[in-house]
Parts: sequence; structure tokens; C-alpha cells
Amino acid sequence: MSTTALAVKMVMDRWNGSILNFTKTLNTLTDEQLQKEVAPGKNRGIYLLGHLIAVHDDMLRLLDWGEKKYPELTGPFLKEADKAVELTPSVAELRNMWNDQTSLFQEKLAAMSPEAWFEKHTAVAAADFAKEPHRNKLNIIISRTSHLEYHMGQLILLR
Amino acid sequence: MSTTALAVKMVMDRWNGSILNFTKTLNTLTDEQLQKEVAPGKNRGIYLLGHLIAVHDDMLRLLDWGEKKYPELTGPFLKEADKAVELTPSVAELRNMWNDQTSLFQEKLAAMSPEAWFEKHTAVAAADFAKEPHRNKLNIIISRTSHLEYHMGQLILLR
Repeated sequence: MSTTALAVKMVMDRWNGSILNFTKTLNTLTDEQLQKEVAPGKNRGIYLLGHLIAVHDDMLRLLDWGEKKYPELTGPFLKEADKAVELTPSVAELRNMWNDQTSLFQEKLAAMSPEAWFEKHTAVAAADFAKEPHRNKLNIIISRTSHLEYHMGQLILLR
Repeated sequence: MSTTALAVKMVMDRWNGSILNFTKTLNTLTDEQLQKEVAPGKNRGIYLLGHLIAVHDDMLRLLDWGEKKYPELTGPFLKEADKAVELTPSVAELRNMWNDQTSLFQEKLAAMSPEAWFEKHTAVAAADFAKEPHRNKLNIIISRTSHLEYHMGQLILLR
């Protein structure tokens, strides 16, 4: 395996590992626990779950994998802070979305060649990408893994 | 730049970005705030800080960069849970350690070639590494970035 393919594999393994850890923790928490704040006055578990689904949903667009599946989450879980608006999806619905999204990502990730990860993501202009080749699809995975772990460290506090 | 060098650069940028974010947040928190638990019954800020220094200190050994600088942190911040033993270093001392460690890492990172990151880390046997080439130095940075972000998501709750 080339060092490039190896580096891509390591980044994907870390992303998949973080998704798996999150799923496992989610499955140990009841719907009632997810309605609680992770710390007094901070985000609730349900908000973190919806927020991560919304952020990952936007990755479909950035990675050129298609349109958002859950555009209705953008408002309440991305643009608005927790408790600013009433959340309409139930925890059960969000759990289903999370699981469907995880399956979709597994499919999409498996279909990518190592080289394809170094293509530009869709939110950067070709002229900028020529000067800044790190603004590629692989970087989307690297940054979103950090984002996921950040919120994972919060979700775990509900246990 | 080769795709390998680009992938390494992206991983290093993410590590450095996470370190910088942590440092900035640390600098907004008072010593008194760091003595508080991030959520009721959970780890205190001082423990998270010492824990991260201890984990990163152990990276010196894994990356073959030398001996631990702060072996006295291993017991209270790695082997023991928070509040199990009395913590002897003060917050001020830990802040200094964090800053010194950050400078040391910047030096060490700058001196590594992209190819050197694909060498085995010191905790894997050569025979195992031959079969599992992902157990390299780059993977230490990838996994520790996730670990850092996980605790960063907790530290921020003290604000």
C-alpha cells in the first residue's frame, strides 16, 4: 500500500471509529437521558445528536455525494442554539436518522479511491484550490472527526 | 507537494489547530474555574489539563523523541481518576508545563520529514508493524488529536 493510501485509510479508520463510539454511547442512553443538559445551562443530548446529523448531512454536499437528506434539521440544529426553538423531531426519529446516515456514509466511503480524497471539496473555488490544495475532501473528514469527538466528550457526560 | 506530504500536513495542521484552541480556552479560564467540575460529579478542569499533559508527555516516548519530561504526572493524571489522590502540581505549574510542552512539540514536529511519520511508533514490535503498517507515528498524532478534542469539548463547559 502506498503511503498516500495508508494515510487515507488511517483517517477513515479514525472517522469510522469515532462514529462507532458515538453510536455505542448513544445506544446506552435512554430518550429521557438525551433530553437532559450535558452540564447545567449547556446543550441537551438531543441537540447534540441533531446537530451532528445536520453537520454530517451537509458533508454530502461538500463531498459531492448529493443533496442533504434532512434539510429540516439545518434551522433548529445548526442555525439556532439549543432551546431557542422547539425541536420537532423526536429522539426516536433522530436515532433512525443517525443510523441511516451511518449506513449511507459507509457505502459512500467504501466507493472512494484514495486519490479521490485529494480532489477539491465543493465549497472551494477552483482558483483557490490551485493555491490551497489542502482544501480537499480528505480535510472535510479530518475536521469533522475533530468536531464529532468534541461533542462526543460532551455526550458521555450524560451517562 | 506529493499527496503523502499533503496528507501529513493536513494531519499536523489539525493537531496544531486543536492545541491552539485548547491553549486559547485555557487562557480564558481562571485558576478558580479550572478547579471546578465540568459537569456535576465529573472531572475537574485541573484534572483534564494534567491528563492531557501526561498523555502528550507519553507521546515523546511513542514518537521516539526522548524520555517523559513529567513522569510525576503519570500516577495522578493517567493511572488514577480525578479526586482519587491529592493533586500536587498547582494550576499555575500545569499551565507552564502545557506551554513548555507546546513549544517542544512545535520544534519536534517541524524537524520531521513526511516519510518519517510512516515509521513504526515505539510501542509496536517490528514483526507486527510489517503486517500492520498503519501502526506508525502519524497514527499517534491522529488518535491523540481525537483525544484532545474529546476533552476540549469538556473543558469549554467551564466557561
